[in-house]
Amino acid sequence: MSDYHSHRVHIYYEDTDLSGVVYHANYLKYFERAREHMLGRAELVRLLDEEGLGFVVYKCSLTFKKGAKLGDEIEVRTVAKKDSPYRATFEQNIWLDSEPAPLVQGIVEMVCVDKDQKLVPLPDIF
Amino acid sequence: MSDYHSHRVHIYYEDTDLSGVVYHANYLKYFERAREHMLGRAELVRLLDEEGLGFVVYKCSLTFKKGAKLGDEIEVRTVAKKDSPYRATFEQNIWLDSEPAPLVQGIVEMVCVDKDQKLVPLPDIF
Amino acid sequence: MSDYHSHRVHIYYEDTDLSGVVYHANYLKYFERAREHMLGRAELVRLLDEEGLGFVVYKCSLTFKKGAKLGDEIEVRTVAKKDSPYRATFEQNIWLDSEPAPLVQGIVEMVCVDKDQKLVPLPDIF
Amino acid sequence: MSDYHSHRVHIYYEDTDLSGVVYHANYLKYFERAREHMLGRAELVRLLDEEGLGFVVYKCSLTFKKGAKLGDEIEVRTVAKKDSPYRATFEQNIWLDSEPAPLVQGIVEMVCVDKDQKLVPLPDIF
Repeated sequence: MSDYHSHRVHIYYEDTDLSGVVYHANYLKYFERAREHMLGRAELVRLLDEEGLGFVVYKCSLTFKKGAKLGDEIEVRTVAKKDSPYRATFEQNIWLDSEPAPLVQGIVEMVCVDKDQKLVPLPDIF
Repeated sequence: MSDYHSHRVHIYYEDTDLSGVVYHANYLKYFERAREHMLGRAELVRLLDEEGLGFVVYKCSLTFKKGAKLGDEIEVRTVAKKDSPYRATFEQNIWLDSEPAPLVQGIVEMVCVDKDQKLVPLPDIF
Repeated sequence: MSDYHSHRVHIYYEDTDLSGVVYHANYLKYFERAREHMLGRAELVRLLDEEGLGFVVYKCSLTFKKGAKLGDEIEVRTVAKKDSPYRATFEQNIWLDSEPAPLVQGIVEMVCVDKDQKLVPLPDIF
Repeated sequence: MSDYHSHRVHIYYEDTDLSGVVYHANYLKYFERAREHMLGRAELVRLLDEEGLGFVVYKCSLTFKKGAKLGDEIEVRTVAKKDSPYRATFEQNIWLDSEPAPLVQGIVEMVCVDKDQKLVPLPDIF
């Protein structure tokens, strides 16, 4: 029943700020890493190099419940849904094995653009 | 009538990614820089060092319309509102002088925590 | 004979800049990730939390031969040497399986400091 | 007599790590910001867009004496020297008004490449 993509991320010094936990903007990076693995890194590079297609974040929203810390190995759980021929929504949550609820919850809406930044239909990998 | 705080940010190589525009997560950094200047950097450091109070982002949402580029000098326009004794909302938009509409629109909800990460009322600077 | 520590790193959008390859400062991050795994992440966190000991970079030098790209999976090869009771040197090179020579070569000198940022002898993990 | 280029940088949350001071790799970013202002941002963008010329760091070395903190406004002092038709060296130090010596000392060697990453002579801005 747990029909999500899982991607694990180690938290290093670079990820934290002086408050001792992960700097809030960095969770968007972990979300993107997870999406790249989910969609297929080789295919993403091929689409970009050969067809000039790139994926861009159109909207995102995040709720921060608890901060990840140095030494943590967090898990990004992602569920993707195609909303229309042009837009996909990724529900992405940050989990820590020792915690009963997600640390961070995110919703990311993606679209696809060509070389001239024109909106195009999402390719088949979605 | 333009009752907002203005903070200007230069876009450097470090801010961009291979798509040629600013990496999406970085706008959260610019929002934070603007909030720090708006609230007063010296006072924020004093609150942290002397009273152990820190501000944390609880929620945020962003809409990306257009990407800023290397060499751009963007403007972060911020309007803040205290929603309750415990929470403030910052409406923060990214503008470029040559553009008729904001490049990026954001809403950031902040709360204040003490040393033990317990929620406390917002201090007077709000 | 290949007596080095190996740590692999995926290159994502966040790592690149508009030139299309990894932003130069990021290699210092990959070097640090590799050192954390080499020394042991759990022990580093324990030293920090229980003994107040942290490791800091005192000097580093890098030579950039070729840039890693989106989709690459690079390897950080690290050889460590204790120069004195107070200082260790890490020779860290970035390799790509398809390349005959390292993309980036680095030398990083580390020291250990206590809570008051006073220099202390390196702990036993070295 | 103070024949250097000066560029001031505010230190924000994003710049620090859990040790409470600036994450070491970030000084390379401040060095680059200073070089972009010194060489002229508009001209750098023009060279890139119209002539396909980009500047890349070939070598760098840094010595870290003391860490900058949240709320600091540091100064990057840069002296540039053309070593050959193909290479320029930037001596870049981080100063804080309240400190008698630089916090960080750096040497950065730059070269210029064309669209195919071929080495070309440095343009006239040097």
